[in-house]
Amino acid sequence: MKGIVYQGPRNVTVEDRPDPHCQEPTDAVIRLTTTNICGSDLHMYEGRTNVEPGTVLGHENMGIVEEVGAAVGRIKPGMRVSVPFNIACGTCRSCNQGWTSFCERTNPTPGVQGAAYGYANMGPYDGGQAEFLRVPYADFNLLELPAGTEHERDFTLLSDVFPTGWHGVELSGMRPGDAIAIYGAGPVGLMAAHSAMIRGASEVYVIDFHDDRLKLASSIGAKVVDVREGDPVEQIMDGTGGQGADAGVEAVGWQAHDPTGEEHPAMVLDNLVQSVKCHGGIGVVGVYVPQDPQAATEGAKEGRIGFNYGSFFQKGQFMGTGQAPVKRYNAELRDLIIEGRAEPGFIVSHELPLAEAPSAYANFDQRVNGWTKVLLKP
Amino acid sequence: MKGIVYQGPRNVTVEDRPDPHCQEPTDAVIRLTTTNICGSDLHMYEGRTNVEPGTVLGHENMGIVEEVGAAVGRIKPGMRVSVPFNIACGTCRSCNQGWTSFCERTNPTPGVQGAAYGYANMGPYDGGQAEFLRVPYADFNLLELPAGTEHERDFTLLSDVFPTGWHGVELSGMRPGDAIAIYGAGPVGLMAAHSAMIRGASEVYVIDFHDDRLKLASSIGAKVVDVREGDPVEQIMDGTGGQGADAGVEAVGWQAHDPTGEEHPAMVLDNLVQSVKCHGGIGVVGVYVPQDPQAATEGAKEGRIGFNYGSFFQKGQFMGTGQAPVKRYNAELRDLIIEGRAEPGFIVSHELPLAEAPSAYANFDQRVNGWTKVLLKP
Amino acid sequence: MKGIVYQGPRNVTVEDRPDPHCQEPTDAVIRLTTTNICGSDLHMYEGRTNVEPGTVLGHENMGIVEEVGAAVGRIKPGMRVSVPFNIACGTCRSCNQGWTSFCERTNPTPGVQGAAYGYANMGPYDGGQAEFLRVPYADFNLLELPAGTEHERDFTLLSDVFPTGWHGVELSGMRPGDAIAIYGAGPVGLMAAHSAMIRGASEVYVIDFHDDRLKLASSIGAKVVDVREGDPVEQIMDGTGGQGADAGVEAVGWQAHDPTGEEHPAMVLDNLVQSVKCHGGIGVVGVYVPQDPQAATEGAKEGRIGFNYGSFFQKGQFMGTGQAPVKRYNAELRDLIIEGRAEPGFIVSHELPLAEAPSAYANFDQRVNGWTKVLLKP
Amino acid sequence: MKGIVYQGPRNVTVEDRPDPHCQEPTDAVIRLTTTNICGSDLHMYEGRTNVEPGTVLGHENMGIVEEVGAAVGRIKPGMRVSVPFNIACGTCRSCNQGWTSFCERTNPTPGVQGAAYGYANMGPYDGGQAEFLRVPYADFNLLELPAGTEHERDFTLLSDVFPTGWHGVELSGMRPGDAIAIYGAGPVGLMAAHSAMIRGASEVYVIDFHDDRLKLASSIGAKVVDVREGDPVEQIMDGTGGQGADAGVEAVGWQAHDPTGEEHPAMVLDNLVQSVKCHGGIGVVGVYVPQDPQAATEGAKEGRIGFNYGSFFQKGQFMGTGQAPVKRYNAELRDLIIEGRAEPGFIVSHELPLAEAPSAYANFDQRVNGWTKVLLKP
Repeated sequence: MKGIVYQGPRNVTVEDRPDPHCQEPTDAVIRLTTTNICGSDLHMYEGRTNVEPGTVLGHENMGIVEEVGAAVGRIKPGMRVSVPFNIACGTCRSCNQGWTSFCERTNPTPGVQGAAYGYANMGPYDGGQAEFLRVPYADFNLLELPAGTEHERDFTLLSDVFPTGWHGVELSGMRPGDAIAIYGAGPVGLMAAHSAMIRGASEVYVIDFHDDRLKLASSIGAKVVDVREGDPVEQIMDGTGGQGADAGVEAVGWQAHDPTGEEHPAMVLDNLVQSVKCHGGIGVVGVYVPQDPQAATEGAKEGRIGFNYGSFFQKGQFMGTGQAPVKRYNAELRDLIIEGRAEPGFIVSHELPLAEAPSAYANFDQRVNGWTKVLLKP
Repeated sequence: MKGIVYQGPRNVTVEDRPDPHCQEPTDAVIRLTTTNICGSDLHMYEGRTNVEPGTVLGHENMGIVEEVGAAVGRIKPGMRVSVPFNIACGTCRSCNQGWTSFCERTNPTPGVQGAAYGYANMGPYDGGQAEFLRVPYADFNLLELPAGTEHERDFTLLSDVFPTGWHGVELSGMRPGDAIAIYGAGPVGLMAAHSAMIRGASEVYVIDFHDDRLKLASSIGAKVVDVREGDPVEQIMDGTGGQGADAGVEAVGWQAHDPTGEEHPAMVLDNLVQSVKCHGGIGVVGVYVPQDPQAATEGAKEGRIGFNYGSFFQKGQFMGTGQAPVKRYNAELRDLIIEGRAEPGFIVSHELPLAEAPSAYANFDQRVNGWTKVLLKP
Repeated sequence: MKGIVYQGPRNVTVEDRPDPHCQEPTDAVIRLTTTNICGSDLHMYEGRTNVEPGTVLGHENMGIVEEVGAAVGRIKPGMRVSVPFNIACGTCRSCNQGWTSFCERTNPTPGVQGAAYGYANMGPYDGGQAEFLRVPYADFNLLELPAGTEHERDFTLLSDVFPTGWHGVELSGMRPGDAIAIYGAGPVGLMAAHSAMIRGASEVYVIDFHDDRLKLASSIGAKVVDVREGDPVEQIMDGTGGQGADAGVEAVGWQAHDPTGEEHPAMVLDNLVQSVKCHGGIGVVGVYVPQDPQAATEGAKEGRIGFNYGSFFQKGQFMGTGQAPVKRYNAELRDLIIEGRAEPGFIVSHELPLAEAPSAYANFDQRVNGWTKVLLKP
Repeated sequence: MKGIVYQGPRNVTVEDRPDPHCQEPTDAVIRLTTTNICGSDLHMYEGRTNVEPGTVLGHENMGIVEEVGAAVGRIKPGMRVSVPFNIACGTCRSCNQGWTSFCERTNPTPGVQGAAYGYANMGPYDGGQAEFLRVPYADFNLLELPAGTEHERDFTLLSDVFPTGWHGVELSGMRPGDAIAIYGAGPVGLMAAHSAMIRGASEVYVIDFHDDRLKLASSIGAKVVDVREGDPVEQIMDGTGGQGADAGVEAVGWQAHDPTGEEHPAMVLDNLVQSVKCHGGIGVVGVYVPQDPQAATEGAKEGRIGFNYGSFFQKGQFMGTGQAPVKRYNAELRDLIIEGRAEPGFIVSHELPLAEAPSAYANFDQRVNGWTKVLLKP
């Protein structure tokens, strides 16, 4: 089969690879119909991780079940399925508690919880930017979709970004009727905004400084806060009559930078603490890492983000963090799509053949205007 | 009446003050039967706040209702009551949502939510280390206690430290059957440990390095982690078979120091992130402040606590913070005391006449061995 | 002032009454701008309650603050306000726990919790179908609205039916993405449907057999289940692929009747148990009473509704019931209206002068086609 | 192997049966070390169900893993395990939502959700009152216990009655500090009482009229309400100062009878509605069935339990019901046992060899004094 293989910094190629097959009785193999490039793939693409050359990339996958192992009973060949990016066993302590993002059995690296496809540090699993993908614990992990090809652009976002945005809103404690401030209008931030609208927010503020992204935010009913037009905290305070947002979402991460391109690892958290009311919550799905030798500050190099914790405490706020347990949300999000109540596909800018992945990576990495979300069609 | 008045750093005196009376129809006046010195009173005592000389101190108060205003109907003269340290209006947005600790009306300082008795920055209210105390919004704020004098040592802890410890456990997300790690065995940490036992923790680890405090922790069934005997994180990992605690409580604050006396503002948060499992929670009731010119690091001087946020995110943990909304918990805690299911008074080391307050402050401030908790009897 | 006075069965008249004034320092007096006739007013109108002749009716009230007592501080004359139908003290055990619908102090009848304006058994309070209304505990009970006259048709539903429908959804445990079945398309059922849509239901089934009501349900995106076209349970099972709804709402009550007009007190509960999946929830806001000499069955005369409890248990369902604590929801619902995210006013069919109340009662009571919801304008 | 086989009403015998083996790659086989007789086994023993003669009984099982299928990875031969009575697949919609008691795949009977070992209507699975037991989906269903034989009397209650009692408390909404009323002091009621104490109830009322059971309730700190001494509702009202319990548990079921032996299907629910405060909750784990030709009233024969629903609604109470999803709780309950914080084994009255099962059934069925809970040791 063909697969997109990481060769080294800013170098991915289309390669021939052996077709995967079931290795365990609980496995399935999927024939990919759509597989997306994720913003987090760029960390690897840019060479800022220790992902091994030769790895097939891709953790946002959907397709048709081609083959199942002897112990697979719920999932059957021919089913159309979404593959959550988390690889989870379904029977460990974390999985039992609904935290598939911290599965204790699927990542063989000692001390690390959680596994994923084609991703640095997330276990020895090839990704799905290819024609076929092996899926462990298929009965537990796969989400059945309606047969056919309808809603493909929407369903393909069920593997990661839609549940991740939804998780950010969940972690923030937002309730219907609340005002929420979402920092970052990339795919995850836009999905958080879409989620907040679906869940009955009264006001959704989206903060960014890219025209194409802010336009998409506006198109779904969010209120745009353009950082280039002034302090976002002041804009939110003005919008809420000085009360602040009831909740906030961090959808940027530790590489946050201002419109001039300078990095400020604590900037977004600082803004969130100021934007959100006393006893309000903050959901953090933008990525922070324990080590990054290339980080912008000495502290951030070892994961230390010196945001104004004193204000956070004084305001009595709370904060939830981390990778989304996709399986907790994807069935209800699928149902919302089927009924036309959610249409996450509005963020998709490109649908390209697998063979064009190398140039798509390059364009997406350079944030060429209008390259919001790329789907690959194997 | 007599009252304990702050005169300046490390100088409190017993002074004659005019008896308070109802100023508003919603006020009551309490005759104090017991009023405690709180660890947080020492911040003022040591001169690290901007509290005004002339202020009567004391926010942990109980007594007998002496007088009520024309609009007070639920509370009647002669009732024995506990006075929550938060002064709340009962009708603002925060109070409506159960967050009396962030009342939007009782503190006249612009931009500040939350008020308290005899406390820096918490509004113009005298404290209760005195013979009488004026209580605003008495019907809303006062908790009725059984008549008589029974359980006085326990009930007096309902105004602050017992609910504050309980709030720490609540914020941590601890569920029955969980293992919890509580950093700090001062009054609040011990109350958190007592709370966790009552709420069905399977294991309660208490981390400290003072013999008298660890002995108290042990007396209520907690597992003692003595920092002098090795890394507390390792001790907790050993105790939990490498799994870590399910939840954690911070009961130390930004002035955390090691057994040698050196301050490390991020030390306790770092230890908690390591001690608690993936997707576990941390309740922070130890105090952090937005500014402190005398803090131990440049960051901490402006509230920036550079703990390992990257690990916190990678482990998908959550964190709740801030002053306890006492009223949310004090009725149920009172009932537990009445039924003999809670006995928080085990932390009380001294019961002294009001006149001995100046020496009691000095001893408590110097952490003279055995001065765990001081009650004053006006 | 003028007021609508209950004189006896099917007899209400416009009478002159003395203007109300503040009796307690915590009172306010409101000048009504809109006051609605509620379906539950018809129980009294029809003579099926023991409401005393001479009572001014009306518990769905909004207006402008005319006068406030000495202890009222948050609310000021001239404010535009919504008046929750529950009269609550704000300081008793129930109010502290957010259950203003079961206030322990405002209803002087021994053993009865909860009070309301102009309503049988709910205390000695005149209603608001008049020019002025006395409001106890004004700071606690009144909800501030934006000045002006905008959204009057929507805001007027904040006093009862919108929060009551919302409460039904809350009690049902519905989560975003769920399918929900709402029995009854009267004002409360329609408000429940509107609420479920706002809160992210994937599918909202509304069951009824009146054309005008089903049309309104359809207009907000609900799926219509017309009982005249077949068994509603089968229709819901067909719609959900045999899985049943995730949650259900009862918005009919004990006088439930089939399209032929025959009463079946257990019919709606039986249908809900069958319509909702295993471990799903049912929110009951349709009224059931402990005694009704005119009820359709011997059991129902003393409150005994013999629905299929065995199936309810076997399916592991849960059920929440009772009058809505309006104050828990009305601020967030107001904010949704202000932002254009909720438009409950779609149910309003008539806006009439107060003087036309007698004929409006008669038409509404006879369920003349198109009389869905009547607003009176004093 | 030997097994206890149902032959017909009041007739169980010890028979030779073929040893079970793994049939599916996800199976395991357990060698039983302890297997209990449950009160619900008596429904079958008495011939009131359609269980087929020839069935091996027994759904409360624990033992040592003897054999595992090819797809079993978490569970290994030699492990000591507890077997939840629910047989669940781990991957269906109900299991995903934590409701293993309503698994949609393990019971092949059309329209029935949920399966169990050796039980009428719960699928074609033999029970564990035998030397060996086949366990489907072993990785998902089995709970690992510490090696050895310690706590065997406690651990054996993890398969059903301890989690079932705990579930009753959970469904009731009881919070720490609450007073709770538990109707029925059989094994499940006593486990509910033990659970409520562990979870921080301030008062636990246990209602029954058997001396041995009330004595056990008293031994764990519960307050005994002896029905022979007067109306239980009055006793609870007296105990709570007229306020009623905050929550209640039904641990009796539809065959509820008074001390004279007469059955009253609605008696316990009626008492609970009266015993519990307004807006309080009721957890129902005593069994109610949709059909029982031998039931005491015409309604109850078809599952219709005519309790005072009007009062239930008027008080705004809520109710949760159904079989416990054991897996949701058993890990935390195991940890409480290991740490000595729970000791459910206090209810065990007899430990007997498997061969004595026939006489044990007879004694237990006749409720011979002191036969509270029987463990069989194969």
